[in-house]
Amino acid sequence: MIKVVLVGTGNVSYHLQKVFSQTAAVNLIEVLPGRSDFTNILSGKNASSEKIKDADLFIIAVSDDAITEVSKHFRKCDKLVVHTSGSISIKNLPKEIRSGVFYPLQTFSKEREVDFKTIPICLEANNPKDLKVLKILAGIISNAVYEVNSEQRRALHLAAVFVNNFSNHLYQIGNEICIENNLSFDLLKPLIMETASKIDTLNPTEAQTGPAKRNDTGTIKKHLEQLTTENQKEIYSVLTHSIQNIYGKKL
Amino acid sequence: MIKVVLVGTGNVSYHLQKVFSQTAAVNLIEVLPGRSDFTNILSGKNASSEKIKDADLFIIAVSDDAITEVSKHFRKCDKLVVHTSGSISIKNLPKEIRSGVFYPLQTFSKEREVDFKTIPICLEANNPKDLKVLKILAGIISNAVYEVNSEQRRALHLAAVFVNNFSNHLYQIGNEICIENNLSFDLLKPLIMETASKIDTLNPTEAQTGPAKRNDTGTIKKHLEQLTTENQKEIYSVLTHSIQNIYGKKL
Repeated sequence: MIKVVLVGTGNVSYHLQKVFSQTAAVNLIEVLPGRSDFTNILSGKNASSEKIKDADLFIIAVSDDAITEVSKHFRKCDKLVVHTSGSISIKNLPKEIRSGVFYPLQTFSKEREVDFKTIPICLEANNPKDLKVLKILAGIISNAVYEVNSEQRRALHLAAVFVNNFSNHLYQIGNEICIENNLSFDLLKPLIMETASKIDTLNPTEAQTGPAKRNDTGTIKKHLEQLTTENQKEIYSVLTHSIQNIYGKKL
Repeated sequence: MIKVVLVGTGNVSYHLQKVFSQTAAVNLIEVLPGRSDFTNILSGKNASSEKIKDADLFIIAVSDDAITEVSKHFRKCDKLVVHTSGSISIKNLPKEIRSGVFYPLQTFSKEREVDFKTIPICLEANNPKDLKVLKILAGIISNAVYEVNSEQRRALHLAAVFVNNFSNHLYQIGNEICIENNLSFDLLKPLIMETASKIDTLNPTEAQTGPAKRNDTGTIKKHLEQLTTENQKEIYSVLTHSIQNIYGKKL
């Protein structure tokens, strides 16, 4: 059984608490807020000290900005200490400790259930033995465990901005167009789901369709006239050009 | 029972054939290629003529460019004639006939099964009686039937470019970043699915997350440095600004 202490009370911590509680192979012995009195807790002078002394690892699931600060308190800790962030290097943890990264690549919010079995967990550790511990822990909750170094993780986090943040923004523009035309956004939802599902079996190059790929300049011109804001027109143009470049066609 | 003749052999026709064949309430009496000898067929001088004389409606599921040309052959037809396109007005069908539109809002490819029950069918007709026929037919195969005029349909088709074509292109950029960093694109697939699923319960404004929304200028700057092509940088900047504008923050 792996004994875990979670640090932080945000979305990632919330979902890790849930999934750890559901398995007998993990003992979640404590959840400490990010602003806990770590000095006293870790030196044995606090009510939590007794509980956490048997921990195998501490998972620091706080905001990116707070990781360096919170992890400083663990400088004298002899346990494995990992963070859960996509964009923060393992080097931001104190050099003198057994450090690692346990990054679940998903968008988390407290209102939505997630199925951890399908969530890729990206692991890194500064020694092979600790990497093994992380692999065991990740393998208990997920079927998609990957070893990913800090540089790759940073790239993944950036890729996630494109496929998550930016795609959602395109949904928002779709919603704006619906509102302007007295249409329900529900009309677009099955298309959005199918677009995402399609790349499970086709790669995005094969899955691409539409006027930009076909170089259908008549439709592109009409679309640009139809759009009501300069912002929408700019996004349409930039993405259309980018698709045309891939398929070797230009306006 | 509604008796249907399909014109065209592309993806939309392929999937309509499948779904019509699965229901006893629709009799698909013939599928005519888009380049058929319509003059002879419709004037009763062809082998298909006998079969199609009892049809309730003709569904022209050919490419957008071919709709006007194909539909000209139906000028003297006394049946209901509809097309299946998102971007072509009902006015592109001959004025003298009973015309309409039967637009299933989905991305179709022959390799992928679709569940028609969830696909929005957008209907338009130039008389109420024919609209009723279309509503019955659409209601047999789908639970999402909408009355949508040509102007609204054109807007929907444009919105579909954003949520389908452009989102898929963002997946492609995610894929490029993975390839550059020796990472499997599989790592991003659960995130892509969750991003699409999320808007079933949250609207896109609520679902938005990321550095642009938080106005995290440090991360935005680092991301721009990380990107390897001018094209990726331009897309990142344009979409980041657009998100910042919505949430009232600027670089």
